[in-house]
Amino acid sequence: MIDPSSKILIVGLGLIGGSYAQGLSQKGYFVGAVDIRQETIDFALEHHFIQEGFVTVDERIGDYDIIVLGLYPNLVLDWVKANQHYLKKGALLTDVVGVKGLFVERLQALLHDDLEYIGAHPMAGRELSGIVNADASIFKNANYIVTPTSHNSQKAIEVCKDIGEILGFSQIATLSPEEHDEMIAYLSQLTHVIAIALMVCKENESFAKYSGDSFRDLTRIANINDALWSELFLNNKEALLESIDAFTEKMNELKNVIQSDDVEALRSLMKESSKRRTLFQRKEK
Amino acid sequence: MIDPSSKILIVGLGLIGGSYAQGLSQKGYFVGAVDIRQETIDFALEHHFIQEGFVTVDERIGDYDIIVLGLYPNLVLDWVKANQHYLKKGALLTDVVGVKGLFVERLQALLHDDLEYIGAHPMAGRELSGIVNADASIFKNANYIVTPTSHNSQKAIEVCKDIGEILGFSQIATLSPEEHDEMIAYLSQLTHVIAIALMVCKENESFAKYSGDSFRDLTRIANINDALWSELFLNNKEALLESIDAFTEKMNELKNVIQSDDVEALRSLMKESSKRRTLFQRKEK
Repeated sequence: MIDPSSKILIVGLGLIGGSYAQGLSQKGYFVGAVDIRQETIDFALEHHFIQEGFVTVDERIGDYDIIVLGLYPNLVLDWVKANQHYLKKGALLTDVVGVKGLFVERLQALLHDDLEYIGAHPMAGRELSGIVNADASIFKNANYIVTPTSHNSQKAIEVCKDIGEILGFSQIATLSPEEHDEMIAYLSQLTHVIAIALMVCKENESFAKYSGDSFRDLTRIANINDALWSELFLNNKEALLESIDAFTEKMNELKNVIQSDDVEALRSLMKESSKRRTLFQRKEK
Repeated sequence: MIDPSSKILIVGLGLIGGSYAQGLSQKGYFVGAVDIRQETIDFALEHHFIQEGFVTVDERIGDYDIIVLGLYPNLVLDWVKANQHYLKKGALLTDVVGVKGLFVERLQALLHDDLEYIGAHPMAGRELSGIVNADASIFKNANYIVTPTSHNSQKAIEVCKDIGEILGFSQIATLSPEEHDEMIAYLSQLTHVIAIALMVCKENESFAKYSGDSFRDLTRIANINDALWSELFLNNKEALLESIDAFTEKMNELKNVIQSDDVEALRSLMKESSKRRTLFQRKEK
């Protein structure tokens, strides 16, 4: 486990950063935070999510051992470029960003030799954002993926996994950044693209009152943070487009078997679907 | 309300027919049932879902006032053709079938003059089938749609709505069979086609352990009763194909804006999606 005297700095107290701060503080770690909004820092202090907070970055962050970048994808590299010289020798950086690909490599390339960065993706969230909605219990039945590269030390991998364990994730796994992005393109990004398309493809105001569980389930994530998700999509374009193509190809196949009244082919697709779905049942909480 | 002395016959004790039987019996109605399997009748009798049951149809069904056809779509017309001569003058027939279109018109056309049929669709279900999974509480937060035509009497419409009320549906609405089918093609059938396509479009066994809530939500209905749903799809082909086309067109639009890095167009689709989704929030239970 991480040395209990480690000081952990959360950069960006949004929904995920805030939930990290809360969860780590509850477990007794010394947690500080950086956020550009004073009111966010105040909220975090009042709720005992953090023990100190900064709206500007300077040498005060120099005594932190672990830095968690809770930033939007496009801000991560800039933050590290601008502020890594304040960090102490041997500090470990990690993040919470939902795409890895190019980003991880570029970050490791620009980092000073006496620092180490290792990617992590806490696969949890809510349809709400901001620290006021932070809640460490969202990690409880979720997956936490560590995405090491050949540049990472065994110790960094262990510390990064420990963070997931301390936060209470139900499964902690390791994937290469590329495997991670392919998986996330299919399991998470494609599902969001589908939900958006389903929600906007047809005038549906008059239908709202008839909607049942299935439509509600498929469109829950259609209520989407456009600033964040547009960055996530465009930072994982290749893998996402590949997933979209695979999906629309199968939609066309289904359309064709329906159009041609091919009951047997239709039922065989349904049987395959049912069989596969059993693998994805949620484990008991 | 329906005359409390009315005798109600459920034809087909599947998940929905069985749940009707349970719910109506709990409210004190005399409920009988027809099912081809003796063990299903025995189960229903033992659990007090029904007071009498028949595995073959004859004049014993002649003292029932209301007949609920809990059959698969393709069986309804045949059952009525074969057995309507046993029914008493003035009996009201209704059903639970999830598509209406041609079916309703054809049924009303072949019905004897002294009988009346009115369509109903209880928009409820489970991923499980059969009487052993019947449970009248599935109707609690669900919609019940009555689909009258110009051939229906005001009295039949009222009785049909009463059934929905007795069973505890949270909303009871009236739509023409055509409006119903357009609505169901989009809200229910398209969502099932999407779930199947998402489930089978990519080799995904190795992904199962990483799946989060969004993938699980979108594929819950990918575990599908292929015998029932292939009938539902093919009996509503025209409306369903129209919905599939509208959806895939929007998927292509999303693909294009992602491919061309058009952040503004992407965010604007997401904003429209989020705005629309608020209309579909579930009411408080």
